[in-house]
Amino acid sequence: MSTPDPTDARFADVGRLVVRCPDRPGIVAVLSGLMAEVGANITDSQQHSSDPSGGTFTLRLEFVLADLAGRRPGLEQRLTALAAEWGMAWRLTEAIHRPRLAVFVSRTDHALQELIYRVRAGDLRAEIACIVSNHRDLEPVAVGAGIPFHHVPVTSDTKAEAEAAALEIVSDVDLVVLARYMQIVSPDFCARFPERLINIHHSFLPAFVGANPYRAAHDRGVKLIGATAHYVTAELDAGPIIEQEVARVDHRATVEDMRRVGRYVERQVLAQAVTWHVEDRVIVDGEKTIVFA
Amino acid sequence: MSTPDPTDARFADVGRLVVRCPDRPGIVAVLSGLMAEVGANITDSQQHSSDPSGGTFTLRLEFVLADLAGRRPGLEQRLTALAAEWGMAWRLTEAIHRPRLAVFVSRTDHALQELIYRVRAGDLRAEIACIVSNHRDLEPVAVGAGIPFHHVPVTSDTKAEAEAAALEIVSDVDLVVLARYMQIVSPDFCARFPERLINIHHSFLPAFVGANPYRAAHDRGVKLIGATAHYVTAELDAGPIIEQEVARVDHRATVEDMRRVGRYVERQVLAQAVTWHVEDRVIVDGEKTIVFA
Amino acid sequence: MSTPDPTDARFADVGRLVVRCPDRPGIVAVLSGLMAEVGANITDSQQHSSDPSGGTFTLRLEFVLADLAGRRPGLEQRLTALAAEWGMAWRLTEAIHRPRLAVFVSRTDHALQELIYRVRAGDLRAEIACIVSNHRDLEPVAVGAGIPFHHVPVTSDTKAEAEAAALEIVSDVDLVVLARYMQIVSPDFCARFPERLINIHHSFLPAFVGANPYRAAHDRGVKLIGATAHYVTAELDAGPIIEQEVARVDHRATVEDMRRVGRYVERQVLAQAVTWHVEDRVIVDGEKTIVFA
Amino acid sequence: MSTPDPTDARFADVGRLVVRCPDRPGIVAVLSGLMAEVGANITDSQQHSSDPSGGTFTLRLEFVLADLAGRRPGLEQRLTALAAEWGMAWRLTEAIHRPRLAVFVSRTDHALQELIYRVRAGDLRAEIACIVSNHRDLEPVAVGAGIPFHHVPVTSDTKAEAEAAALEIVSDVDLVVLARYMQIVSPDFCARFPERLINIHHSFLPAFVGANPYRAAHDRGVKLIGATAHYVTAELDAGPIIEQEVARVDHRATVEDMRRVGRYVERQVLAQAVTWHVEDRVIVDGEKTIVFA
Repeated sequence: MSTPDPTDARFADVGRLVVRCPDRPGIVAVLSGLMAEVGANITDSQQHSSDPSGGTFTLRLEFVLADLAGRRPGLEQRLTALAAEWGMAWRLTEAIHRPRLAVFVSRTDHALQELIYRVRAGDLRAEIACIVSNHRDLEPVAVGAGIPFHHVPVTSDTKAEAEAAALEIVSDVDLVVLARYMQIVSPDFCARFPERLINIHHSFLPAFVGANPYRAAHDRGVKLIGATAHYVTAELDAGPIIEQEVARVDHRATVEDMRRVGRYVERQVLAQAVTWHVEDRVIVDGEKTIVFA
Repeated sequence: MSTPDPTDARFADVGRLVVRCPDRPGIVAVLSGLMAEVGANITDSQQHSSDPSGGTFTLRLEFVLADLAGRRPGLEQRLTALAAEWGMAWRLTEAIHRPRLAVFVSRTDHALQELIYRVRAGDLRAEIACIVSNHRDLEPVAVGAGIPFHHVPVTSDTKAEAEAAALEIVSDVDLVVLARYMQIVSPDFCARFPERLINIHHSFLPAFVGANPYRAAHDRGVKLIGATAHYVTAELDAGPIIEQEVARVDHRATVEDMRRVGRYVERQVLAQAVTWHVEDRVIVDGEKTIVFA
Repeated sequence: MSTPDPTDARFADVGRLVVRCPDRPGIVAVLSGLMAEVGANITDSQQHSSDPSGGTFTLRLEFVLADLAGRRPGLEQRLTALAAEWGMAWRLTEAIHRPRLAVFVSRTDHALQELIYRVRAGDLRAEIACIVSNHRDLEPVAVGAGIPFHHVPVTSDTKAEAEAAALEIVSDVDLVVLARYMQIVSPDFCARFPERLINIHHSFLPAFVGANPYRAAHDRGVKLIGATAHYVTAELDAGPIIEQEVARVDHRATVEDMRRVGRYVERQVLAQAVTWHVEDRVIVDGEKTIVFA
Repeated sequence: MSTPDPTDARFADVGRLVVRCPDRPGIVAVLSGLMAEVGANITDSQQHSSDPSGGTFTLRLEFVLADLAGRRPGLEQRLTALAAEWGMAWRLTEAIHRPRLAVFVSRTDHALQELIYRVRAGDLRAEIACIVSNHRDLEPVAVGAGIPFHHVPVTSDTKAEAEAAALEIVSDVDLVVLARYMQIVSPDFCARFPERLINIHHSFLPAFVGANPYRAAHDRGVKLIGATAHYVTAELDAGPIIEQEVARVDHRATVEDMRRVGRYVERQVLAQAVTWHVEDRVIVDGEKTIVFA
């Protein structure tokens, strides 16, 4: 029940390094050499080569380094030098820092409740900084969880102002999560949160893009319904997919039954995607993702 | 290894009755009354009401009736009378009869091999009457299994003649199975096998209709690939879905990996759909199916 | 968020009849005849014969009958007469009535939170009448959900008194749910709630009976962990199984990781089992269950 | 249908290195340095630390090195030197070499057929050198597949001689697979194939050890049945687990139904385990396995 102390000993001095560069022999040796030299103990390492020759190399390291915070500037300096040499993009994070999330909702609470539960349980190491909604229905949930709630009504006439207001509210968060927000956000909004804006779509994309996917699934007579968590880009429901899952339905299922069953798939898929994101396990690779699960 | 004797005692005197009619109170009482009256012992019963008021009622009964073959005409007479009274469509089959299948293939054998295996194992109670292919690659498989093989080459110029030849070959089969045939069959062909023509499509329909679904899935970056068995209708990949299943893939999967993983999903989905069909468990309901699994 | 009105129109006049009797031809005709005669519209029917000859026949009907409450006594009278004639046990419930549950917990809240969520969402049509715990940790959860909380400490010396106190508290509930209670209840307690006492065990039974199943699973090096919801009987972890599910783990998983992953399996399995129970879908059949899902 | 050429270009010059040693900082740097130095291009790398401090470090590299066969002696010399320095056990294989398997069967063919199919399809890069059975039932399968078949009858009196004869036959194979052999092999036999003897057990171990697991599963009323592939050790059904999977069953399933459903789980689990083994993805770690899937 209790929120784990952010100074949870399991995460003290735990660092995560994500690196991308053109694939050339020797890159692993150089990076692991650097880690050995600074005295970091690598506890997890995952890598991917998009193509052995001429592709992109992606590496995620998890390591323990005594006095990580103090030694970080030195490590960053070394990485900056390597980056120049190897054409390398990199990101270094400390596991002890919990990213700040803004969660956008409309009237249904299943996805939000799941995120709140997982944060409390310590399974999702993040802080829900605020909840934004175009309706007041879920304000009690926010209040009960001690999370600031912002009511930002949206009508077709006020869409631009509403987005501006929302942007103001979330200006300092690390990740925006659309947890069944039911509104299409503008390309400008997307551009403000590149690879930091996650949506849960209630279908197995690319099937049933757009509104009312459960009705469309019902009309098509599918035997499995699904949910997809993806980064939001300017094109509707077309951003890089992070996670998908399905559940079985049969001929007895009404649209309403599909919605009910689907809620449990949606909450699971979204929570998984957000957890991977905040643990620096998701790397956008063009129109796809690499997930070091 | 041995083909079970078609007079397998488990199936002797086992009958299956499938009934569809407008939903009216009393229909179950009338039908179960009839079964009781003739002395049939109902061993399985499944039913579905598309809508409690004004919908369609569907019932599948499995029963044991001593001397089923001999008493069948009498039972059919009674059903004909009820059909008139209740606006009822019905179908009565004897489990001892094994439907005859024609399997159409191209160059890959996984779906065909699975059907052959399941028939031999007695899990799919059917007889593969013939294998038809536009290539000779799988002739040895047919020969090895003792199944007549028909090579019917198809080119864009000879499509009509080829179909005519194929139709001739399969004129007396109960079910045509397109086990990765890779050719689009004509509306005329479909019309010859209404609700008796099953295809396996190598995607989770309605995603990735048409050719090269694994490439399309790879390009979209999906995290699950799927397969769909459906009845074939004039509209491509749009017929009633019988069964679907998925398998997990990750960012490492190439198109070729997806094809390889997908083969195991495809063979499972197709074999399941065909098995349900030959056991009279699939009832087409408009553009969907009812599956009494 | 809101609790659905118990007079939810979907459940008005919906009845459920569960019947068990020796399997004899004609029983379905008699029961469906009765339902037709009283004017009930059967909307769902599932049946099972343990053995076509000499076994037990089990039937579950869901039906709509105008003025069900008013006509119930008459219907019950008819069922009583049939029961005598056919050696039939039966149970008739009105869907509008929501069973009262007592939930026993210890210190972890995942299973409890899931039950609370599903009741609120209307997916589990029951009322959580009280929460009983040997610790005070989850009192805030109960208070937040507006559910009476009873702290009943248990030590090895006070086990009998504690159980007596707990029994007093739950004397009028319909179902007791052990949602990770972590205490073994006495045979006497079990006897007070025959087929009305559900436990979630955090393993795939019969593997890892008893305490610390995740540690045992870890030591054995299993590749899947599981959870089992079962009715509690006098013999530890040996009662009739209602539902089971598993989740994949790999060599990286520590005991703590298994606990974390397992929580999501446990909550799902327990909530499913309780939902089926309150919808009269689970029938105990000796040491097993029939589940009309 | 055709067996892929063992000189399949995809596997030319592809090497696999598996290394185990006490976990010390710098080991990755040293190994990746070596690979860079010899000009190998690492295409896949997976590692595991049993415990960041004082545990065992395990690494599997897949790499491409021009003229691998020619340069192997030099590489091995370097590895031998490193092994002394780091207390390192290692194994270097060339992907182009296909391990030789002996498959032991009794009367059921599903697991054997799956292995044959996957070898033919190129999904399992191995050669089935021989099939050994205590019965003649599956001789036609062996003959049809062009694989030598050895009939080695076993009775309680001739068990020792039979094993001796079998050992003679399989003396030069790389892996022995018990594909539903139904005989307990002696500790001596196990000792001859340490970590090279894989069995498929038809239950979700450790549930239902020993004979007749489907009957035991049926009697217990489980809702999922499973299969487990494991290395065989002297203790029955207690060796390191490689892979497990389950399938759903319900109250209708007879023991025979469970056997039928279970066959499809068994063949999948065994084939997966054997495939991982021959690709050097399974590392025995005490009583468990590390699987770099």
